Amino acid sequence: MRVRTITEDRQKVHVVVLDKGEDAVASILKFARDSDVRSAQVSAIGAFSEIVLGFFDPGRKRFVEIPIREQVEVLTLTGNLAEQDGQPRLHAHVAVGKRDGSAHGGHLLRGIVFPTLEAVVIEVAAELRRKSDPETGLALIEEIVRT
Amino acid sequence: MRVRTITEDRQKVHVVVLDKGEDAVASILKFARDSDVRSAQVSAIGAFSEIVLGFFDPGRKRFVEIPIREQVEVLTLTGNLAEQDGQPRLHAHVAVGKRDGSAHGGHLLRGIVFPTLEAVVIEVAAELRRKSDPETGLALIEEIVRT
Amino acid sequence: MRVRTITEDRQKVHVVVLDKGEDAVASILKFARDSDVRSAQVSAIGAFSEIVLGFFDPGRKRFVEIPIREQVEVLTLTGNLAEQDGQPRLHAHVAVGKRDGSAHGGHLLRGIVFPTLEAVVIEVAAELRRKSDPETGLALIEEIVRT
Repeated sequence: MRVRTITEDRQKVHVVVLDKGEDAVASILKFARDSDVRSAQVSAIGAFSEIVLGFFDPGRKRFVEIPIREQVEVLTLTGNLAEQDGQPRLHAHVAVGKRDGSAHGGHLLRGIVFPTLEAVVIEVAAELRRKSDPETGLALIEEIVRT
Repeated sequence: MRVRTITEDRQKVHVVVLDKGEDAVASILKFARDSDVRSAQVSAIGAFSEIVLGFFDPGRKRFVEIPIREQVEVLTLTGNLAEQDGQPRLHAHVAVGKRDGSAHGGHLLRGIVFPTLEAVVIEVAAELRRKSDPETGLALIEEIVRT
Repeated sequence: MRVRTITEDRQKVHVVVLDKGEDAVASILKFARDSDVRSAQVSAIGAFSEIVLGFFDPGRKRFVEIPIREQVEVLTLTGNLAEQDGQPRLHAHVAVGKRDGSAHGGHLLRGIVFPTLEAVVIEVAAELRRKSDPETGLALIEEIVRT
């Protein structure tokens, strides 16, 4: 367990509303680059017209892709923005609901917004940095530097 | 994509604990009116004795109702408070878990609390305003005014 | 409904990254004791190699255990830290996704991290205190004291 405690005198919060047809991952990363957001907590709800979920297979050390090609409610999109090799990385997981109310979810690989995705991004005044983990091949948070 | 960045010098946070028998939607809206909360992020867990989920059908431009008439754990209730025509609006999605551990979810239309719902409401110093979208008939966030 | 409003001049935020093999409940409680966190909102994503979910059965006034003995994505872990009899208590619910993308969830009784769990803990400057509720036997939030 690694813990970093930050006391925020001035909390930066971003409200980010995505529109029809945008890819959630690409758009949130574009926002992070444009607004120079390096470390943040992300929380969103809305709906997707199609989505690709990922499931990390520890045996094969890679993500299995699970495409869902139908309209789904985004029950929750939760994650964080961190930095890897100087670039922002989004690590987000989603739970989605189908027309019958059944829930599905995984790592967010791709999600096409329809009609909206409403996100609140709370910046964290620490630099979260990811590095490749030899055991799993995943980019895990390795450093938490106080900014 | 529309982005609004807010720097909060003084963050207002509300802890809202609902009791047995309360409807989550009605009670959170009552809290928003009583405490004059116009724009906020809402996050809660707890349990419901019954719930009505909604699934937005883009073809019919309306919510299909999915009632679940049994005790469920509220795995997550995520959403926001915004304003429409001068009144607070709650837009919340839920994921719930049944006795067999299966998860279900959608737009929160109605949820009867039992025995508790514990919410944290973080105010956002921006006015989120909803307007009816002609294409879908939904009230989408159209304006984000810095207060 | 009980409401407590807190204005935070200095918001304390903790980034807590759990490592392979740690039990999420035990580790978050250890963090709370070590960092003297009494009241907070907790939000996390990551993955578990095994998990025990709980479903509260109101008739029997106890949690039914639902073990899942396979790798799952943690779609969301949401909850709060509060105090009971002077000790920190974690009340957290999780939604998890299996290899087929199906979602499951409940009260978090036990979750073994693999390869990571990334949590953001936002402190709330109120003392949340739990007391045993005679009707259900559950420890519900009974007092919200402004600190």
